[in-house]
Amino acid sequence: MKKFNPIKTDSGKIKLLETFDNTFPNRNYLITHTASEFTSVCPKTGQPDFGVINVSYFAGKKCVELKSLKYYLQAYRNEGIFYENVINRILDDLVAVTKPKWMEVRGDFSVRGGLHSTVVSTYGKYPD
Amino acid sequence: MKKFNPIKTDSGKIKLLETFDNTFPNRNYLITHTASEFTSVCPKTGQPDFGVINVSYFAGKKCVELKSLKYYLQAYRNEGIFYENVINRILDDLVAVTKPKWMEVRGDFSVRGGLHSTVVSTYGKYPD
Amino acid sequence: MKKFNPIKTDSGKIKLLETFDNTFPNRNYLITHTASEFTSVCPKTGQPDFGVINVSYFAGKKCVELKSLKYYLQAYRNEGIFYENVINRILDDLVAVTKPKWMEVRGDFSVRGGLHSTVVSTYGKYPD
Amino acid sequence: MKKFNPIKTDSGKIKLLETFDNTFPNRNYLITHTASEFTSVCPKTGQPDFGVINVSYFAGKKCVELKSLKYYLQAYRNEGIFYENVINRILDDLVAVTKPKWMEVRGDFSVRGGLHSTVVSTYGKYPD
Amino acid sequence: MKKFNPIKTDSGKIKLLETFDNTFPNRNYLITHTASEFTSVCPKTGQPDFGVINVSYFAGKKCVELKSLKYYLQAYRNEGIFYENVINRILDDLVAVTKPKWMEVRGDFSVRGGLHSTVVSTYGKYPD
Amino acid sequence: MKKFNPIKTDSGKIKLLETFDNTFPNRNYLITHTASEFTSVCPKTGQPDFGVINVSYFAGKKCVELKSLKYYLQAYRNEGIFYENVINRILDDLVAVTKPKWMEVRGDFSVRGGLHSTVVSTYGKYPD
Amino acid sequence: MKKFNPIKTDSGKIKLLETFDNTFPNRNYLITHTASEFTSVCPKTGQPDFGVINVSYFAGKKCVELKSLKYYLQAYRNEGIFYENVINRILDDLVAVTKPKWMEVRGDFSVRGGLHSTVVSTYGKYPD
Amino acid sequence: MKKFNPIKTDSGKIKLLETFDNTFPNRNYLITHTASEFTSVCPKTGQPDFGVINVSYFAGKKCVELKSLKYYLQAYRNEGIFYENVINRILDDLVAVTKPKWMEVRGDFSVRGGLHSTVVSTYGKYPD
Amino acid sequence: MKKFNPIKTDSGKIKLLETFDNTFPNRNYLITHTASEFTSVCPKTGQPDFGVINVSYFAGKKCVELKSLKYYLQAYRNEGIFYENVINRILDDLVAVTKPKWMEVRGDFSVRGGLHSTVVSTYGKYPD
Amino acid sequence: MKKFNPIKTDSGKIKLLETFDNTFPNRNYLITHTASEFTSVCPKTGQPDFGVINVSYFAGKKCVELKSLKYYLQAYRNEGIFYENVINRILDDLVAVTKPKWMEVRGDFSVRGGLHSTVVSTYGKYPD
Repeated sequence: MKKFNPIKTDSGKIKLLETFDNTFPNRNYLITHTASEFTSVCPKTGQPDFGVINVSYFAGKKCVELKSLKYYLQAYRNEGIFYENVINRILDDLVAVTKPKWMEVRGDFSVRGGLHSTVVSTYGKYPD
Repeated sequence: MKKFNPIKTDSGKIKLLETFDNTFPNRNYLITHTASEFTSVCPKTGQPDFGVINVSYFAGKKCVELKSLKYYLQAYRNEGIFYENVINRILDDLVAVTKPKWMEVRGDFSVRGGLHSTVVSTYGKYPD
Repeated sequence: MKKFNPIKTDSGKIKLLETFDNTFPNRNYLITHTASEFTSVCPKTGQPDFGVINVSYFAGKKCVELKSLKYYLQAYRNEGIFYENVINRILDDLVAVTKPKWMEVRGDFSVRGGLHSTVVSTYGKYPD
Repeated sequence: MKKFNPIKTDSGKIKLLETFDNTFPNRNYLITHTASEFTSVCPKTGQPDFGVINVSYFAGKKCVELKSLKYYLQAYRNEGIFYENVINRILDDLVAVTKPKWMEVRGDFSVRGGLHSTVVSTYGKYPD
Repeated sequence: MKKFNPIKTDSGKIKLLETFDNTFPNRNYLITHTASEFTSVCPKTGQPDFGVINVSYFAGKKCVELKSLKYYLQAYRNEGIFYENVINRILDDLVAVTKPKWMEVRGDFSVRGGLHSTVVSTYGKYPD
Repeated sequence: MKKFNPIKTDSGKIKLLETFDNTFPNRNYLITHTASEFTSVCPKTGQPDFGVINVSYFAGKKCVELKSLKYYLQAYRNEGIFYENVINRILDDLVAVTKPKWMEVRGDFSVRGGLHSTVVSTYGKYPD
Repeated sequence: MKKFNPIKTDSGKIKLLETFDNTFPNRNYLITHTASEFTSVCPKTGQPDFGVINVSYFAGKKCVELKSLKYYLQAYRNEGIFYENVINRILDDLVAVTKPKWMEVRGDFSVRGGLHSTVVSTYGKYPD
Repeated sequence: MKKFNPIKTDSGKIKLLETFDNTFPNRNYLITHTASEFTSVCPKTGQPDFGVINVSYFAGKKCVELKSLKYYLQAYRNEGIFYENVINRILDDLVAVTKPKWMEVRGDFSVRGGLHSTVVSTYGKYPD
Repeated sequence: MKKFNPIKTDSGKIKLLETFDNTFPNRNYLITHTASEFTSVCPKTGQPDFGVINVSYFAGKKCVELKSLKYYLQAYRNEGIFYENVINRILDDLVAVTKPKWMEVRGDFSVRGGLHSTVVSTYGKYPD
Repeated sequence: MKKFNPIKTDSGKIKLLETFDNTFPNRNYLITHTASEFTSVCPKTGQPDFGVINVSYFAGKKCVELKSLKYYLQAYRNEGIFYENVINRILDDLVAVTKPKWMEVRGDFSVRGGLHSTVVSTYGKYPD
């Protein structure tokens, strides 16, 4: 299943993310987006992985635009990457483009060999 | 689908909200209203959005009257507005008319392109 | 639907509540009773309201007797009263007869015009 | 709430429906589409109604195109129409454009005054 | 609890039911209304009973009007009547006013002494 | 655990069942009673068994009275009896006292050694 | 239903509890046992009560043996005792035989007269 | 993982099954046993398989004894066998020892590589 | 998103399917495999589609091998194909390699624009 | 059932665990793996036990490799061991190979004699 060989295109992915100005930058309010149709490829087995990606954040000056987030996540479809790395990479890219006050990215991945895995990574301090 | 073009009628909306006197102003007790049939329009695509709006507050001197809250939320039916803005606007309008000790407005919006979104905005300090 | 006109019978209601001695007055333990078949009448529309009433408390010298609590709650069946008031009245009556260390009364009311409401009122300080 | 007055635009609605050729016209296979975000207006109260519309059919020479079905159903958004009529009208329009072997349209409508309603209407004979 | 003594007002109840003309009398389509907030009184114990009433029918020339059905069912609120009788009475009244091709009334009643009961009664022959 | 030794008291049990006249003997309508708190004793191990007993029937001239059915089922509490036998005995007793047109008794028993069991026994012919 | 008269056999019950040595006495780890088939008798009505008993604890030198806990709980089967007392008695007995660092006993009891009750009692300080 | 190599011990397994006389051989009543903790080994990968086994039958002269059925199913724990074969073998063994009027064995197996499988095999004719 | 352009590789896909001999060819027993992680691409929008594919059949001389079925379904990952066609193609390929007595393929596809779709296609006559 | 006698092979088990380098050692992010198909043997009764094992940790320099964790947990399949011990042993082994900042192992075991048990053991301090 050659088509599943890892493709290194991170920089390309971050370019897919668009933002819009936060209308309420001085207010702390929580935004969450849940993508229930995330899929990537296991770099060890070449088998597809499936998962639910949850992004929560307190916006700073910028909010991530929904449609661009969808395309960004779709860009992992044929990339070989470990659960632990995909979550931390998504966090790094979203922090880079939105500069949030606080952000958490969570992945809830499909069962493999009877094992179900989740990875949760956080940036910044949760506002009081 | 012209009928979906954004309509600017905020001031009109706040006029729809009615209140009644809080019989227990010196007691801190929590009131929540959940509207499971909220709908507005996406200003980018002109497509209808659907969501569940949850309003929770500790009343001060005034409580919001249920029927008027229903009409207030219905007034967003054909307005083009982003998720982030609709929640903060509802919070601003309800705070203006009820002067609560604490209030939180939460929106739980329908899936768009496989992405499910929520927005939560809060006013004031949660009473001890 | 005349039979639904408000009836003022509070004093009568509190007389319906019976108590028994708490066998473990020096121990802090939590008792909860949930009545899933509460019904009263909306004073504005004369329409019946339905809800779930939850009573939680740390008993002092007295516990409320279950059967009497049932009759007490049934006495609201044909009374016209707002959600906010019914919860605070039940709290006042139960505090008066049981003198609890801490008590919370919660009402979870049926949908009206697409709006679902809850009211939660508390007495005393939660024991450490 | 004037904007909710009934609008007579049936012919306009049927024009919104597009079809594509059924690749397997000689095979009896069941297609269902469920629209969970249907909304129209009650002609009696001017209040919005919400529901889930389910379309099931055995295609003849034509299948209904998904996106056009979405726009067709959205066209009821501000029309005043009874539950019983909306279902039979949708059935009539879809039968007219797809000429199915068998079709069923079901509506599952939101609670009104504590009453939940469904309407199911069928065209043609279910294939053996 | 005197107010719970049986009240004989059947004829009065049937007067509460209103109908409207069936726009599609020559088509067999199924209409169902589910009332999740039905309550009456047990004639043996004077205790309130609660239940879910489900009415399904193939309309003839008349459909039952929703609001009037709500008021009709509310009229049982303080009447003492057995589960078996309330279902058959509702069926008789609705058949009398709508003359349906087929009708079924089902009651799903709340637990009493650890026993949960349902009663289902039917009129006419289910259309082919 | 001597108190769990089988007690032979069938005749006594059937005496606990009371009936009342069926108001609609000429109509075929279905009555079901579900007892979610049934318990008896395993004659092999002396261990308590738990289950849900469901009784469904088309009444003839008599209906079984709810409270008496509760006491009848409670009488199995300390009797040692196999799943297969308890269901058929309940069916025999209820058929003897109500002479139904059709009756089914179903038992849904708690897990034993990782095995969950159900037994369903029927009397008479289901009415058309 | 004489057989349900209260039986005073506490001391007897505590004798049913067996323990085994905790292999990890210096580590704080949480053990919970949930008995979903608890039944006793209401001392007021002689009616059987049903509930779910949950025991959670941080073991000291001893752990309670599962089978003996089962027999201990079964010993309440025919005893007349109030919800509030059964939970505190079980806590007292288990604390006496296991000397835990912390223990909580919770009872979740079946609906009576439309009222569902829970009782939660705790011993010791929750370890950091 | 040598310990998982297939072991051929069918005859041994059938010896584990015990029966008892059916008290109601002339009555058609349905008995079902569901084993939610079945496990065997995949003969291809040596990996453990897990599943839920459901046995339903109309008994003839014999019923299968529950405890022996448990031991019989446990005997597959370390045997390498395909889903399709394990179900048909269990059916053959149970039919041989109980001579039922009708029997169905169903297996609901755990997900493997994102694929969930069930196998259902039947003996005899379902009684009218 | 070029990588999503339709690829025509049917013949290649059918080559991925492997079979093994049915040990019980003379017995009618039902086999089902459910793939909860199916994904393909919408030929109209280039957007990924997700769904659950369910295959049920009565085997003839051959059964489909699970692992090969997994690889076969994965081969649709980057192919542009309509819901209606993917189900009928899978049915055609599986019928060609297994020659079943009866087979049904069902697809349950993810929501698109608020519309959820299923397609069910069948081959042969269901055995008595 | 001799094959179930306890086998002392701990050291052997820890050898089955493999690790890989944590790409983000300076970031605190939570990894969880849930094994829903854990089975071991009760040392007292020789009966199989079943459970769900949940491992959560903040990785230090090493992460545990998924496939090796699967084989490690499978190695308990035929070992006789108490619930309390299996959880603490798994924690000890995983801490030894991954040196986490914080780790929690939780076991949720199948019902035995109507009793459901869980054991939760923790290592290290939860990061701020």
